[in-house]
Amino acid sequence: MAPNTPPLLEAHYGVPMAGAVLNAINTRLDANTVAFILEHAESKLLIADREFSAVVKPALQSLGRDIAVIDIDDALAEGGELLGETDYEALLAEGDPDRPIAMPDDEWRALSLCYTSGTTGDPKGVVYHHRGAYLNAIGNALVFGLNRHSVYLWTLPMFHCNGWTYTWAVTAVGGTHVCLRKVDPAAIFPLIRDQGVTHMCGAPIVLNMLVHAPVNMRQTFDHTVEVATGGAAPPSAVIEGMERMGFHVTHLYGLTESYGPAAYCAWQDEWDGLDLQPRAERMARQGVPYPTLPALSVRDPETMAPVPDDGETIGEIMLRGHTIMRGYLKNPEASAAAFRGGWYHTGDLGVMHGDGYIEVKDRSKDIIITGGENVSSLEIEETLFRHPEVMEAAVVARPDDKWGETPCAFVTLKPGMEGRVSGDDIIAFCRAHMAHFKCPKTVVFGPLPKTSTGKIQKYVLREQAKKM
Amino acid sequence: MAPNTPPLLEAHYGVPMAGAVLNAINTRLDANTVAFILEHAESKLLIADREFSAVVKPALQSLGRDIAVIDIDDALAEGGELLGETDYEALLAEGDPDRPIAMPDDEWRALSLCYTSGTTGDPKGVVYHHRGAYLNAIGNALVFGLNRHSVYLWTLPMFHCNGWTYTWAVTAVGGTHVCLRKVDPAAIFPLIRDQGVTHMCGAPIVLNMLVHAPVNMRQTFDHTVEVATGGAAPPSAVIEGMERMGFHVTHLYGLTESYGPAAYCAWQDEWDGLDLQPRAERMARQGVPYPTLPALSVRDPETMAPVPDDGETIGEIMLRGHTIMRGYLKNPEASAAAFRGGWYHTGDLGVMHGDGYIEVKDRSKDIIITGGENVSSLEIEETLFRHPEVMEAAVVARPDDKWGETPCAFVTLKPGMEGRVSGDDIIAFCRAHMAHFKCPKTVVFGPLPKTSTGKIQKYVLREQAKKM
Repeated sequence: MAPNTPPLLEAHYGVPMAGAVLNAINTRLDANTVAFILEHAESKLLIADREFSAVVKPALQSLGRDIAVIDIDDALAEGGELLGETDYEALLAEGDPDRPIAMPDDEWRALSLCYTSGTTGDPKGVVYHHRGAYLNAIGNALVFGLNRHSVYLWTLPMFHCNGWTYTWAVTAVGGTHVCLRKVDPAAIFPLIRDQGVTHMCGAPIVLNMLVHAPVNMRQTFDHTVEVATGGAAPPSAVIEGMERMGFHVTHLYGLTESYGPAAYCAWQDEWDGLDLQPRAERMARQGVPYPTLPALSVRDPETMAPVPDDGETIGEIMLRGHTIMRGYLKNPEASAAAFRGGWYHTGDLGVMHGDGYIEVKDRSKDIIITGGENVSSLEIEETLFRHPEVMEAAVVARPDDKWGETPCAFVTLKPGMEGRVSGDDIIAFCRAHMAHFKCPKTVVFGPLPKTSTGKIQKYVLREQAKKM
Repeated sequence: MAPNTPPLLEAHYGVPMAGAVLNAINTRLDANTVAFILEHAESKLLIADREFSAVVKPALQSLGRDIAVIDIDDALAEGGELLGETDYEALLAEGDPDRPIAMPDDEWRALSLCYTSGTTGDPKGVVYHHRGAYLNAIGNALVFGLNRHSVYLWTLPMFHCNGWTYTWAVTAVGGTHVCLRKVDPAAIFPLIRDQGVTHMCGAPIVLNMLVHAPVNMRQTFDHTVEVATGGAAPPSAVIEGMERMGFHVTHLYGLTESYGPAAYCAWQDEWDGLDLQPRAERMARQGVPYPTLPALSVRDPETMAPVPDDGETIGEIMLRGHTIMRGYLKNPEASAAAFRGGWYHTGDLGVMHGDGYIEVKDRSKDIIITGGENVSSLEIEETLFRHPEVMEAAVVARPDDKWGETPCAFVTLKPGMEGRVSGDDIIAFCRAHMAHFKCPKTVVFGPLPKTSTGKIQKYVLREQAKKM
């Protein structure tokens, strides 16, 4: 559990080389979720940066068993306390340089474990195998044009799909990693100039931060910086702003289950001549498969037949290849469901265009992507239901210029409680029970729209949230 | 059997997509060897360019069974006759665009077959599998920096290890192939300029041709062209001459059995400051493994222990990974010998330097590489032995500025025949019995140096040939 510092990068090599499985934990999670992960993963050793001790300490306490804890005592860490028995550097000093590297006896062995918010509140442990990570890293190098001259700045958390496998991709080609403890434009611009950064990745929020950085903070640089971004397509104004500053933006698509990026919106030369609007429409597509992904398809999830490539017929986006997870840890039902019919079901609804580009139209899973983090709307709803005055609740994504999306809660209070509980009360309750980034930013009171069978009509709420 | 024309490139896709195995035949071979290959490979269909009908016709006649022959009637072909029942374009027109592609049911299935001259006269059929070709193609893209803007000129024969897998590498990244019927500087320079060629490969002979092209034939171009070359390291004067013209040369190492390149001499920035001689020494090394090759090692072939990385202790260069052939077709003994001890034995003797770079010092196999072609010295010796006046013969490589190496024959005539047979007679006899490029360029008469047990001391002859 660490920010993008050398110890976490080293762990991407040292942990597998020791024959262990790496589980990089999202540093934004709350203590309960961290405890759940440590328990579910049967973790034997935790290496943690002192800055997160306020979360790690209660997580360890509620774990109910002792595990070895190694402290990363980074000089740049802000506050926190040392919780472990051994210092990270002291641990490294104990190492025997002649100890042979533990190579996996099978390329399908687990390399790492990445917990993701699914449709249910409990995070699911996505198991990455060696072959998949190798291939996706190679795919990144090819698509992003990495080579031994590349200088990669770590603006993407390494705990997100192992830094979308760039942790390995940059090293595979002999490039240079530039670690970054905190995503801060005041640090990013000077690093780009002074370190000659050529490549970086990040959620759209990172692009937003750079575009909206105070003018006196921005620095010019005389080379183009390739930026790959995932999640929702960045608004065309953001892309324009980035390109004016010297960045070139590529839009990627993928999921934790696909080792991060599985598709990219490959630029077509004829788009150069398009007007801004049709051009932005092309760029917002999720695109074509990585050269390392054999099959990307939009299919009817019932019949498994591919939809026509008319850009209109909606189906589910499905993936097939070796850059798909081995499965969910200790969750055979979820794994079987994810792979039914021989394809990985992304849960994303989309269309196939005539030029072979896919475009996401909606998510069938109830996921909100806020600041690059996946948040389960069901997890928020479960928290809301625990509030003593809440009768019913439904959470949907609300589009947001800064965060991409934010959780918007529609709440029906218990009879007689109307007007006695405020939106701020609800938000404060959530913040006391879950990671802050997961909490609703908007709360709307009133009855929920339902189908004749009593099912909440989330699409109505989504429309409502869009218009707010 | 075709030069580097679109049909041969298409065959690299169409043949496997039809569920068949591609066997690109070296167009420089003689009819007997072509017949041997068609027989040994159990070929069912031959697609041949009319220019080679003088070889193909007798090969088909001596085959002793009928196979379907498709004519490539290229407008640029020089002479030749149509031998087949169907024209290549007519064959394509028969195709059903809706016929599903035959994907291999197993990634280890044979994709292609490449015949190579081994230590014995009969060519061995090296079986490439889908996974290996995929990986090596990706390795080429990474090492050579191919991307969708790359324009690749076909100066390397596609029948050499399937164009060292660039046939697939260029397409994998969405680059452009520029076909070239004949390696001719008069065509190459204008193509580089007019087509914006960025990458090409070739044996050192190709570099030689370009460096020594008449001044009026050379054209300038304002971009750098990456050139990868295999076989013996080009002399530093050639590298210098190439760089002056705007080429950047990378030295690769590999064999047919490793899908072509398996290692490359990756440039180290500190070499920039070296004088020409130590710099050329560094550049002449075979280098470090491709990112797609897990293991490259120099080992004692008896004990299989790695030699120390002292740059002095000679061992055999060995490879391990998925970019190694499946085996030799219908030759389990040779396959077993090649893979004994769990490593592929290259037959090349070399050293491991302290910086992890390998360097080839000698070949343990009796192979001569002339103009980029492997020629078996034993095959030439067998031909020499058929000469009625020859008693003994041994063939070694003689260093050659133009061809890299040429075959040099040491011949002992039968008693009383001394002075009655000339070197030209011997060469003419060879040309009547084997492909011209395989024939000795030098013939030396006299007794052969032998060990006490009567074994010919080839290293003495090599030293002698070097000094000529």
